[in-house]
Amino acid sequence: MTAKLNIVPFVSVDRMMTLVHRIGVERFLTELATYIEEDFRRWETFDKTPRIASHSLDGVIELMPTSDGLHYGFKYVNGHPKNTRDGLQTVTAFGLLSDVSTGYPILLSEMTILTALRTAAMSAVAAKYLAPQNATCMAMIGNGAQSEFQALAFKALLGIRNIRLYDTDEAATRKCAANLSKHGFSITACRSAMEAVEGAQIITTVTADKQLATVLSDNMVGAGVHINAVGGDCPGKTEVQREVLLRSDIFVEYPPQTRIEGDIQQLPPDHPVEELWRVIAGTAPGRRGDRQITLFDSVGFAIEDFSALRYVHGCIRETGIFDELDLIADPDDPRDLFGMLMRAAVAAAA
Amino acid sequence: MTAKLNIVPFVSVDRMMTLVHRIGVERFLTELATYIEEDFRRWETFDKTPRIASHSLDGVIELMPTSDGLHYGFKYVNGHPKNTRDGLQTVTAFGLLSDVSTGYPILLSEMTILTALRTAAMSAVAAKYLAPQNATCMAMIGNGAQSEFQALAFKALLGIRNIRLYDTDEAATRKCAANLSKHGFSITACRSAMEAVEGAQIITTVTADKQLATVLSDNMVGAGVHINAVGGDCPGKTEVQREVLLRSDIFVEYPPQTRIEGDIQQLPPDHPVEELWRVIAGTAPGRRGDRQITLFDSVGFAIEDFSALRYVHGCIRETGIFDELDLIADPDDPRDLFGMLMRAAVAAAA
Repeated sequence: MTAKLNIVPFVSVDRMMTLVHRIGVERFLTELATYIEEDFRRWETFDKTPRIASHSLDGVIELMPTSDGLHYGFKYVNGHPKNTRDGLQTVTAFGLLSDVSTGYPILLSEMTILTALRTAAMSAVAAKYLAPQNATCMAMIGNGAQSEFQALAFKALLGIRNIRLYDTDEAATRKCAANLSKHGFSITACRSAMEAVEGAQIITTVTADKQLATVLSDNMVGAGVHINAVGGDCPGKTEVQREVLLRSDIFVEYPPQTRIEGDIQQLPPDHPVEELWRVIAGTAPGRRGDRQITLFDSVGFAIEDFSALRYVHGCIRETGIFDELDLIADPDDPRDLFGMLMRAAVAAAA
Repeated sequence: MTAKLNIVPFVSVDRMMTLVHRIGVERFLTELATYIEEDFRRWETFDKTPRIASHSLDGVIELMPTSDGLHYGFKYVNGHPKNTRDGLQTVTAFGLLSDVSTGYPILLSEMTILTALRTAAMSAVAAKYLAPQNATCMAMIGNGAQSEFQALAFKALLGIRNIRLYDTDEAATRKCAANLSKHGFSITACRSAMEAVEGAQIITTVTADKQLATVLSDNMVGAGVHINAVGGDCPGKTEVQREVLLRSDIFVEYPPQTRIEGDIQQLPPDHPVEELWRVIAGTAPGRRGDRQITLFDSVGFAIEDFSALRYVHGCIRETGIFDELDLIADPDDPRDLFGMLMRAAVAAAA
């Protein structure tokens, strides 16, 4: 595919949407989940760095690199809560995959849509190991940009068809319900978070407010529930009341990062948590009983983005859905970069 | 220019070459140098992180981020010495500039050619402050991919027209001489490094071998010379004999990085060095006398890439030489990413 050494395959936003539809959203989520599980099983082979963050008054720009020794991947992602005020996305992202043996990029991809898909796939993978068996109903508190992806991933991987929605903004719930109504769900729009959690075996919290909020309080959580805590994902942003955390067995992606960014930032730094990869690899238990409360404190880790890029790289080879980007200088003689530049003068004069 | 919120301006390899010729190589180098000087003068306003490196058996992949509070930039760059064996570049790079207040990218650019230009411009800026006044002759030991850029930058910024070339590979010298012959230089191809330094007020070492080599030995360096040490730029790769360093006043970009990567990795970690930005800002002396040996231990720092991206960003606005990259998802309602994806199904079916 890369016979032309200067070319890097590029998946634009438009190409990503085409790719997702060509494959089918639910199949895409299911296949992406298998890539995530595969990479979590070989967790120890990865080079793990905490994300490199550049903070400013208005937000943060982060680079999230990782490598498995064969491929290297990184994601650029920003988080700017005030952006929506100006009609911009709060979070946008793109990512790159490259070949470790040559350092040459092999894929550049939009990752705003892809991150939404991988976050949902990750949540559903965690729930596969942690949620009560035969769960049929999920409450979803927060009905913003990530909510529909979560619902579809739980349908595709766990067969969840009953969704109970709640958002402080009714318009968000209406939007989410309208979007999901075309995908075979039974949807209940609720007037409170308390109403939403009634009868749900899985509770997903995925609100957007950047504050220490209590979206899920102690009295709302009954025995045996699995909590998928997605929205508490940066310092100063939590959703789940401390008492709920203390009653739960907590599962995390990468503890050094989750202790700073996750809902467990409310707990002492030595509070016991289990690394999810150990559960997936079969070396630590997942759900142990009917009355256990499990909580996945999701913040998003570089390896999930790596899995997503690896999956997309496979998809574009099969489908041919990508563009060619002239990103790598490729002189005939590697030592003659200047000669290549000078020979281009003719073209420039034209 | 970015009325379409999904679009990021992109400068491909081809566009970069067109841009350089439209502006003219020497003018490009001169203008780029003013951007570097400007940014070095306000060094303290930058967020400085050591580069984030991912090492493997065959090479290294690095991310080099920095920010001045208004813009954020990073460069992806690899270093794989064995690549040339397979007809690939040892070093390839691309970079991104974004707006700190929104986190949105405003420029994606190839940086293989741009890095060669910024490295040369940086060397010439350092020499402006450190080389003997009215220098006319430069020796260049190492005649590979970076050599012609160095020569042109020294011509553009310091008026150097006599170049004395030496490389262990005669073919490299022939290539360099042929390339430079069209640019108004008086060129002498030499049979040894010793012959090359004869009569030169400036000595540039820019060899490519990844080893602790002695390209420039003590007996070759007379009083009053300025040494532009470019090729010693990563751990285990040096060019200048320790005794030369001990006789020189040493100027560096960012000490924590240069102590690991530069020629001064041969010296104790507390050996005195001067930060170049202080010289440019006027708070530390540059050259103090006729017999002083000055040495710029160049390794390349993120701020120089930032200056280069900032300069190119200005150039594309003036010239319109760029492509449009559909990199940022831009739903009508920022909370309805899923709705945007679903509406694209029609296009995908076509």
